[in-house]
Amino acid sequence: MPQTEGIQNTTLFIDSGSIKDNWQTLNLKSMPAATAAVVKSDAYGLGANKIIPLLITVGCNTFFVATIEEALNARYLTKQAEVYVLFGNNTLEEAEVCLENNITPVLNHLGQIEIWRKALKINNEARLETKKSKAWLHFDTGMTRLGIPKQELEKIRNNPTIVNNLNISGIMSHLACSDIVNHSTNYEQLTHFNHLRLWMNTQFDTYLNWSLANSSGIFLGKEYHFDITRPGASIYGINPQLDQKNIMKDVVRLQAKILQVQRVDTNQTVGYGGTYTVKKPGRIATIGLGYADGYFRAASGSAQVYIRDFRIPVVGRISMDLITLDITDVPEKDSHVGSIVDVIGPNYSVDKLAQDSGTIGYEILTSLGKRYKRIWL
Amino acid sequence: MPQTEGIQNTTLFIDSGSIKDNWQTLNLKSMPAATAAVVKSDAYGLGANKIIPLLITVGCNTFFVATIEEALNARYLTKQAEVYVLFGNNTLEEAEVCLENNITPVLNHLGQIEIWRKALKINNEARLETKKSKAWLHFDTGMTRLGIPKQELEKIRNNPTIVNNLNISGIMSHLACSDIVNHSTNYEQLTHFNHLRLWMNTQFDTYLNWSLANSSGIFLGKEYHFDITRPGASIYGINPQLDQKNIMKDVVRLQAKILQVQRVDTNQTVGYGGTYTVKKPGRIATIGLGYADGYFRAASGSAQVYIRDFRIPVVGRISMDLITLDITDVPEKDSHVGSIVDVIGPNYSVDKLAQDSGTIGYEILTSLGKRYKRIWL
Repeated sequence: MPQTEGIQNTTLFIDSGSIKDNWQTLNLKSMPAATAAVVKSDAYGLGANKIIPLLITVGCNTFFVATIEEALNARYLTKQAEVYVLFGNNTLEEAEVCLENNITPVLNHLGQIEIWRKALKINNEARLETKKSKAWLHFDTGMTRLGIPKQELEKIRNNPTIVNNLNISGIMSHLACSDIVNHSTNYEQLTHFNHLRLWMNTQFDTYLNWSLANSSGIFLGKEYHFDITRPGASIYGINPQLDQKNIMKDVVRLQAKILQVQRVDTNQTVGYGGTYTVKKPGRIATIGLGYADGYFRAASGSAQVYIRDFRIPVVGRISMDLITLDITDVPEKDSHVGSIVDVIGPNYSVDKLAQDSGTIGYEILTSLGKRYKRIWL
Repeated sequence: MPQTEGIQNTTLFIDSGSIKDNWQTLNLKSMPAATAAVVKSDAYGLGANKIIPLLITVGCNTFFVATIEEALNARYLTKQAEVYVLFGNNTLEEAEVCLENNITPVLNHLGQIEIWRKALKINNEARLETKKSKAWLHFDTGMTRLGIPKQELEKIRNNPTIVNNLNISGIMSHLACSDIVNHSTNYEQLTHFNHLRLWMNTQFDTYLNWSLANSSGIFLGKEYHFDITRPGASIYGINPQLDQKNIMKDVVRLQAKILQVQRVDTNQTVGYGGTYTVKKPGRIATIGLGYADGYFRAASGSAQVYIRDFRIPVVGRISMDLITLDITDVPEKDSHVGSIVDVIGPNYSVDKLAQDSGTIGYEILTSLGKRYKRIWL
């Protein structure tokens, strides 16, 4: 991604090529398993409306979203692709929306299974077309969050008719610790999932698709891939392996123009609460983004930005719309009003900003502000 | 605000009446000074398109925004009201947008003053209507962020023509520590501002409007009010006085329906990384919001929610779209699938959630998610 002149006050560059390359890398790594794309939370904040059609051009035809509203939007964008809604059908109305729009609900507990059965029955009685009406089952193997838990699985084992005649086409679970390669939970979840698979496959006549791996799970080995992998974060550039160099391409670059430069002297304070005291005569620059734009207040005193290869500390408290930078060590020709600052860029990745903000790259992405001018490369 | 049945998965209620009452409280407190409304960052995340017309109905006719885009939107919403853009005019184009749309730029440094002068000159030469073309000057009295700094003020004192013939109609500054009543910086900034006022008033023939106080500044005393106060946060319910009971009315209530309930047993872990271990047999509920909705990951392990008056700990890591609650101590009749949970509500304010998230209420508001169904009361 080139540094682009003529940007607005703040500009977020999103690199379509990197997104496509990242999905293809994950797809290659997943083969012979198929590779879906998780595009929930507006494709991790980057824009599902752009990213779904983009990924279709490189062969992705399966999309996972969280909410029914996101599923409808995905279906609006593509008639052909498979759309899975991870929150499942929480009401009969939601189940009917799934049926009408060929959206596959991921059923997370017996209550959702019952709703789905009821919706199918109503549809059958009305002799509506239900051939395409598939659902997945989600078993919780260690997240204790969403998914059919142990005690409900026991009920199903005791009475397998609970899952009969529901047009179940796949089974998934979700890994809790996949970013840590040697975490014992990974292997425990895998074992649990394999046991489930042995038993479940005896209960169904039709072929079931099995899915366990998220982005990081893809890198735990072939035995985690099953029929379909579900990467999200790494499509958008997040490192799937905490202890390794990131092999994903950077997807976003965030730049801002300097709004003002002030000369400061010893003992002068900067920002709200006067938390930062100037130690020697120098220069402070202000740029126009802040926590209202998803640049977390928690990054106060720890985040950095760059001008070319000059590393610049963010000083003072992060305000709602503004942050202040100590540019004392940057030549004036590179740090005047209008100079371009890399807030996220080649020297300072999403993951690095996340670390300095006390969070993970995912939260940086999903919080990227609505006021940035967005330019798709 | 009544607890409303029939909500969607997650619903954000915004109380118009409280917003109006809060502004009127601030207005009464500010009198005889006029009271503006700061509506930058989409009215602190709540929606400028609703809030600007709403405040006009109770007599507010002055609005402050951060960016030129926000200013244009405000002007689109109201032809009559005064609109001030705090980032000023950073380019000649921005100055021209101000002139064409009767937007008042707040000039923050000599560079912006020069741009404004150039724009006025071009307009005058073209014999365009410039009667309405006002600007404000912003002097930095202690923030070291935006505003004309000391060394530039010296230049103006030595050569007052720098600020002549610019149609200056007002002067502002911004308080750095106003939420702490006895902070010495408040008085220092006030003194600086008063000196400036004595000198400036001798330099201008026309009447100048003076403005210093933000929400908290209003509560520092009459001597901080000058001609016009500029509250923001407290209009939206944030406590202006850290050490006092909040006299503002709550503006938002955030509710979610329980998506799933799991029975859990000793030693079972919850969520990513298995950071929370269950201590005794109990029940975990999952609701459908997470850090992608502005429910900060930093609140993992410390935030609470409520069902009626039952206080419920949020346990495990906050995920992108989901959080998990330990509902063991809540009667089952009140905590089943579909039960309504107060994420922000009468028992747990924006300020309280902020405290448990390691931030301030402002950041909670500006981060409120786009996936919530928003209902205006």
